[in-house]
Amino acid sequence: MAVGNVDFPEMNKVSGIKLGTASAGIKQTERDDIVVFEMIEGGTCAGVFTQNAFCAAPVHVAKSHMQKNPRWLLVNSGNANAGTGKQGMTDAMTSCSAVASAVAGTETQVLPFSTGVIGENLAVGKIEAVLPQAVSALHEDNWAQAAQAIMTTDTFAKGASLVIELDGHSVTLTGISKGAGMIQPNMATMLGFVATDAKISQPLLQKCLSIAAEQSFNRITVDGDTSTNDACILMASGCSTAPEIMENSESYQLFSQAVMDVCKRLAELIVRDGEGATKLMRISIEQAENDEEAVQVGKTIAHSPLVKTAFFASDPNWGRILAAVGRSGIEQMDLDKVEIYLDDVCIVRKGGRAESYTEEQGQQVMIKEEILVRVVLARGNARQEIITCDLSYDYVRINAEYRT
Amino acid sequence: MAVGNVDFPEMNKVSGIKLGTASAGIKQTERDDIVVFEMIEGGTCAGVFTQNAFCAAPVHVAKSHMQKNPRWLLVNSGNANAGTGKQGMTDAMTSCSAVASAVAGTETQVLPFSTGVIGENLAVGKIEAVLPQAVSALHEDNWAQAAQAIMTTDTFAKGASLVIELDGHSVTLTGISKGAGMIQPNMATMLGFVATDAKISQPLLQKCLSIAAEQSFNRITVDGDTSTNDACILMASGCSTAPEIMENSESYQLFSQAVMDVCKRLAELIVRDGEGATKLMRISIEQAENDEEAVQVGKTIAHSPLVKTAFFASDPNWGRILAAVGRSGIEQMDLDKVEIYLDDVCIVRKGGRAESYTEEQGQQVMIKEEILVRVVLARGNARQEIITCDLSYDYVRINAEYRT
Repeated sequence: MAVGNVDFPEMNKVSGIKLGTASAGIKQTERDDIVVFEMIEGGTCAGVFTQNAFCAAPVHVAKSHMQKNPRWLLVNSGNANAGTGKQGMTDAMTSCSAVASAVAGTETQVLPFSTGVIGENLAVGKIEAVLPQAVSALHEDNWAQAAQAIMTTDTFAKGASLVIELDGHSVTLTGISKGAGMIQPNMATMLGFVATDAKISQPLLQKCLSIAAEQSFNRITVDGDTSTNDACILMASGCSTAPEIMENSESYQLFSQAVMDVCKRLAELIVRDGEGATKLMRISIEQAENDEEAVQVGKTIAHSPLVKTAFFASDPNWGRILAAVGRSGIEQMDLDKVEIYLDDVCIVRKGGRAESYTEEQGQQVMIKEEILVRVVLARGNARQEIITCDLSYDYVRINAEYRT
Repeated sequence: MAVGNVDFPEMNKVSGIKLGTASAGIKQTERDDIVVFEMIEGGTCAGVFTQNAFCAAPVHVAKSHMQKNPRWLLVNSGNANAGTGKQGMTDAMTSCSAVASAVAGTETQVLPFSTGVIGENLAVGKIEAVLPQAVSALHEDNWAQAAQAIMTTDTFAKGASLVIELDGHSVTLTGISKGAGMIQPNMATMLGFVATDAKISQPLLQKCLSIAAEQSFNRITVDGDTSTNDACILMASGCSTAPEIMENSESYQLFSQAVMDVCKRLAELIVRDGEGATKLMRISIEQAENDEEAVQVGKTIAHSPLVKTAFFASDPNWGRILAAVGRSGIEQMDLDKVEIYLDDVCIVRKGGRAESYTEEQGQQVMIKEEILVRVVLARGNARQEIITCDLSYDYVRINAEYRT
């Protein structure tokens, strides 16, 4: 159940980045389930990975290969290769070697990514068998196929693409993502792959991605869980005619904003595909003392099952939002100064229901598919936004019935 | 949907503690909804209260009156008097004055408690009108009526009672509680009232209650939310013939264990009445470095919607439990040493599915109504247990449809 407009966009190809897909039949046989990315020699690559201590074997391998100027990514859906112990590490390494053989490259230049069922060994043989096919399909035009191939419980393919101008030259950013819950250990996980033809050093690229991920993927939540396989990769081929992006330049500002925009769209699409989601809520925490505090309050609201079920029911239940703010752990909060708005309607003021508020006003906002919840703390100037979805019967159904 | 045996027990009356109920018609007219407790002069009273910064008006008043040797409690269900601003404080004070008038006492010796809808003003007039009736009904035998009167969305009345022997004398502990979610701001909340005829100083009584609450009410969770009105009170009338309980005595050990036992039973009954609950899970975190760490891991598991829906589905989805342990924020955890058991069945060992484990074994445990989940961290000697319930369609229904 997608919330809002989730049409797959026109994907601008990225010079120097090719993609190829194939069907290895890891879980389903009727569709492509592996993707190979190839970046031209001389490009740079940045990555951010799950903070879950139980991170999956491919995450361990990808992190260590990040230092070796990676040029290839191998992604499989249908199996997360997580909770697989030593065999999982061996399987992740074997699949890197298989890519290296097929492209005549070095295995340490391959980053592996897996998403799907936890706790089952990866059928590496099936992947090896179809790798030549994926490699021979490598082409700059294959973004849509790749977006399809990395899906698991996703109900639609997720993409974002834009072209910006730097110093009079075009620079393209194109990316795909997958995920329908922050974690679904049986069918994990959130993955994002973004490519650009910009010329930019690895440290600066990593800085762009780290900032963007913090403000995009790390600001969404479906069920408050963090997956074992989460990863987002940003590759820069350097094929654009634009000059190299240098730190603190105007180009850097424009480029990093573009990375942010693409990541935000890819992250938002994951919430729009949240398991069982019928509504999208933007929880904007304003006038906080600092960003950490704003995120803390925002996530407490976004994770509250009571707030989420109230939104599912289109019930303007301001008491539940207020109670979540109250238990968010912020010390010395002056509750009489806190104001809460649903879109433009003030629902809480001076520690209770706003005098001007009528239930009718609240309901007019709540029946909408997308709702802005503004919580004004009156403590400072920081503002952060958390994007989440509601909690419906279908969330329970999807997660209770998955293996039956 | 009660999980397991929740029969209301034989309630031993507590010498020196009387209870009276009446129907004020605050939300429903057909049943009693207010309770007055009266303790004989000379007793002591201890209390623990919600940590929610948005705590309700009666909580503010009760906390301040705790210092004035309270002898009366006034509890109403149907309205939480929370999120009601200054009017809420006035209403809470007015209801204390009304009790004081009816019993010829002092208003600062009255502690008020409210549970029910948030954000609506308390109908103090209705309470005042029936207070004389409740006061004239005061009797040591009214525990069952009181347990009924404090219910909101509870599906059964909750009580626990036991008699212990201290220095050859009988000492009684009897208590009631209410709550079907850690928070339900529309119909809040968890309340517990325990009375004993033991003779014990206020500081020592407070110490007993604080320790017991930490290990009982603070170890349960239905939906991870902390209410605006949570409170637990322990009154000691001193009417027993047993000598005064002194710190570090054998009597103190026996008495504090009995307080713990009563609080644990009252807390567990709340989980057994958890909104939509079909199963009760004891999450036992063992061999942790310290208690805080054990609680942190236990609560991360207990709050995971994915773990909770898996239990609802009787699905031995060990990957979800493992992923929750992984994201619980414990640093430098050696995952290869972690073991997870469902009852006696080892499901996770060495970072993956235990070799001996079969899906059939897991399912045999999962179909049970009560399940022990043991997570052995192999880091130290601390052990803590969190009690929770599953997440079912009915949880969503109850919380989505409450106001419709």
